[in-house]
Amino acid sequence: MDDLDSQDDLVVRLRSVLPAEALITDPDITASYANDMASFCEAGTPAVVVLPRTVEQVQHVMRTATALRVPVVPQGARTGLSGAANASDGCIVLSLTKMDRILEISPVDRIAVVEPGVVNATLSRAVGEQGLYYPPDPSSWEMCTIGGNIGTASGGLCCVKYGVTAEYVLGLDVVLADGRLLTTGRRTAKGVAGYDLTRLFVGSEGSLGIVVKAVLALRPKPPQQLVLAAEFASTAAACDAVCRIMERGHTPSLLELMDRTTVHAVNALTNMGLPDTTEALLLAAFDTPDPAADLAAVGELCTAAGATEVVPAEDAAESEMLLQARRLSLTALETVKSATMIDDVCVPRTRLAAMLDGTAAIAEKYGLTIGVCAHAGDGNTHPVVCFDQTDPDESRRARESFDEIMALGLELGGTITGEHGVGVLKKEWLSRELGPVGMELQRGIKRTFDPLGLLNPGKLF
Amino acid sequence: MDDLDSQDDLVVRLRSVLPAEALITDPDITASYANDMASFCEAGTPAVVVLPRTVEQVQHVMRTATALRVPVVPQGARTGLSGAANASDGCIVLSLTKMDRILEISPVDRIAVVEPGVVNATLSRAVGEQGLYYPPDPSSWEMCTIGGNIGTASGGLCCVKYGVTAEYVLGLDVVLADGRLLTTGRRTAKGVAGYDLTRLFVGSEGSLGIVVKAVLALRPKPPQQLVLAAEFASTAAACDAVCRIMERGHTPSLLELMDRTTVHAVNALTNMGLPDTTEALLLAAFDTPDPAADLAAVGELCTAAGATEVVPAEDAAESEMLLQARRLSLTALETVKSATMIDDVCVPRTRLAAMLDGTAAIAEKYGLTIGVCAHAGDGNTHPVVCFDQTDPDESRRARESFDEIMALGLELGGTITGEHGVGVLKKEWLSRELGPVGMELQRGIKRTFDPLGLLNPGKLF
Repeated sequence: MDDLDSQDDLVVRLRSVLPAEALITDPDITASYANDMASFCEAGTPAVVVLPRTVEQVQHVMRTATALRVPVVPQGARTGLSGAANASDGCIVLSLTKMDRILEISPVDRIAVVEPGVVNATLSRAVGEQGLYYPPDPSSWEMCTIGGNIGTASGGLCCVKYGVTAEYVLGLDVVLADGRLLTTGRRTAKGVAGYDLTRLFVGSEGSLGIVVKAVLALRPKPPQQLVLAAEFASTAAACDAVCRIMERGHTPSLLELMDRTTVHAVNALTNMGLPDTTEALLLAAFDTPDPAADLAAVGELCTAAGATEVVPAEDAAESEMLLQARRLSLTALETVKSATMIDDVCVPRTRLAAMLDGTAAIAEKYGLTIGVCAHAGDGNTHPVVCFDQTDPDESRRARESFDEIMALGLELGGTITGEHGVGVLKKEWLSRELGPVGMELQRGIKRTFDPLGLLNPGKLF
Repeated sequence: MDDLDSQDDLVVRLRSVLPAEALITDPDITASYANDMASFCEAGTPAVVVLPRTVEQVQHVMRTATALRVPVVPQGARTGLSGAANASDGCIVLSLTKMDRILEISPVDRIAVVEPGVVNATLSRAVGEQGLYYPPDPSSWEMCTIGGNIGTASGGLCCVKYGVTAEYVLGLDVVLADGRLLTTGRRTAKGVAGYDLTRLFVGSEGSLGIVVKAVLALRPKPPQQLVLAAEFASTAAACDAVCRIMERGHTPSLLELMDRTTVHAVNALTNMGLPDTTEALLLAAFDTPDPAADLAAVGELCTAAGATEVVPAEDAAESEMLLQARRLSLTALETVKSATMIDDVCVPRTRLAAMLDGTAAIAEKYGLTIGVCAHAGDGNTHPVVCFDQTDPDESRRARESFDEIMALGLELGGTITGEHGVGVLKKEWLSRELGPVGMELQRGIKRTFDPLGLLNPGKLF
């Protein structure tokens, strides 16, 4: 069979079970499913896009893929930043966005059971109405799906207090490469029966199976958080404040840093009027019973670390404005030049200052603007390399500086990715972090779950 | 070679690198390493016991084991309750108890780096001196090791608020079956580079590799907790209180239940004078800034659920006495008859009452005493089947009731093991929980890490 025949065969087989509206073959439309939001990651041309609504339909897709040896690229809302959801040539794009039902919310068991296409914000609001809280809050939370969050092990602003997506996934239903259905984990608070397969799927970027249902842990809804902004004359002083805050045993609900470039970019985008003479703006928040008292204590630590100004928000509205500024940071930095590469290096908190100083040195060495916003409390930095992609030399320097930032992160005892994942963007770097023994075992696990290598090929490694 | 020759060869090879004091061959002494604390689990006779002090020595042991195809059974303090540390015939017992150094404690990064033989209580006290907190607190915390805690994914009283061991393991150094050294995970707060191998080792019962170093997450030390005791005329009413407490969004630092049999057993052992007419004693604690206020709120919920008496502890000493009673529950129940089998079924909180009622019905059906203590806030019950092991019929009924309790747990949407693990005790049951697809993948992972099947054979599956 030539390519066209085999594509016909693929579509005929899929159509035998999937309803017409679940299948897109128009190349103009399928092309729009080729990419997630990562820049400069290769993407192929999908053969077909499927949008199943049931587990059985997903199983049919995977059985067909296995029978015909067609690669499958699972997708959520494609808000990812590493190219993990990018299509490969001739693949089936398996979009889970139509499986978007919240199946259950239990305030006593503190769990939600959801399909993978539920949007993060939809779930957050639904559980909030019952006095519950689903913490993971990536910046794309209004768009991104729970399935995508699981695939990429998403983080967010909440992590310094509440941890990452992985900590909220109790159990999964997964369609395997050959179409069989696997149930992992539990809906209980604890459980240790066998190896933790649930956790293995979290962050696996769709390379081990297709998540079709998830049991998620919830928490009681905390009090409304109150935010403080502190200005510093250097990023080093701001990082010192971060270390003091954590060393003293505080548990802020967020602890975020925006450097001068980021503050300027946000002001340019929004007219928010953030303080534009500061070298680093630190945002700390508490959702404790007495957040004002906690903010006062943290404010003193900021002052002791050299803050030039410490401004607690007056109320929830002012707090929300500051959070909005932080959430818009990446978007704002994307407007600085025609293109950006967004890094995601996480280092031990004690090395945060070294990471930021080193990043500034890299920016200077390459003659580039690199704005940094960071989940400072986690040591998770997002250096954003801004460049003109029509300038080949500047583009080359951007890529080199991006890599040098990862090398610096590893040197400081960190990781190449705190929360965005490996995908296509960092796959050349994974072995530098994991080493040959780790890579061999990672590949062994991949083979155990997907012996034909059909699930999201070319990602991770 | 006959058996004696091959054992000579094994010892000679081990001795070539291990110092004399790290090697025990005297059968009277090696026999004492045959068992952990589980009852009625088969155990073989070890060929040799090794007590390495360095990673290189562990690597030599594993290289030797691989070269000679000798099984290896890793051990911590052997306080486990599932037989996971039991020797197999002719094995090398690899005791990690001499690798007991705390290598680092960082209050800013909130991590500890430890060798596997560090005793849980030793670590807890060491980090406590620096204002930090390592939550996992199995009842055996004064004896059990961190390596054993990682191998069995231990829980404890703290879990309802602070989670289980798995949530505190950030990174590992692991000696693989063939002696190679693998580093997994990170020392950063976040990180998503590749599949989560760290989590795969937690709860793997020594079947995938030998943990020789661990990076553990710490928390700031919370305020001293204050405990409340509430008496109920039925376990169902106590379970109703548990559900109300969790539904209202409270986060107790522990929420424990002792049934009448357990209360009587503790009184008999300790003369503590716990209320002996109650059918269920519920202990709730808070380590919040204002624990008395939280206890008052929870006390009201207990009363609304039918508590006959609600007694908040006056002070830390009284709180500690109540905790001590709970911690001694298993020990106390062991004195009821000549033998016990300790179950570890965890169900969704909403099914806790059904689990306890069902367990009582099983006790009646088999004419046995089954005392139950439970981490009620987690739905994690420990039904303790008390019987006379010299009576074959009673022993048979004990085993049958033990199994029926697990079947009930699964029927109620629970797991056969909340925190004690599978080991030898429940290996026949693992497939009933995981199903054939899950078992196939579990075995595939085992083969990826240990293709010769040398690591703790006969455990898990």
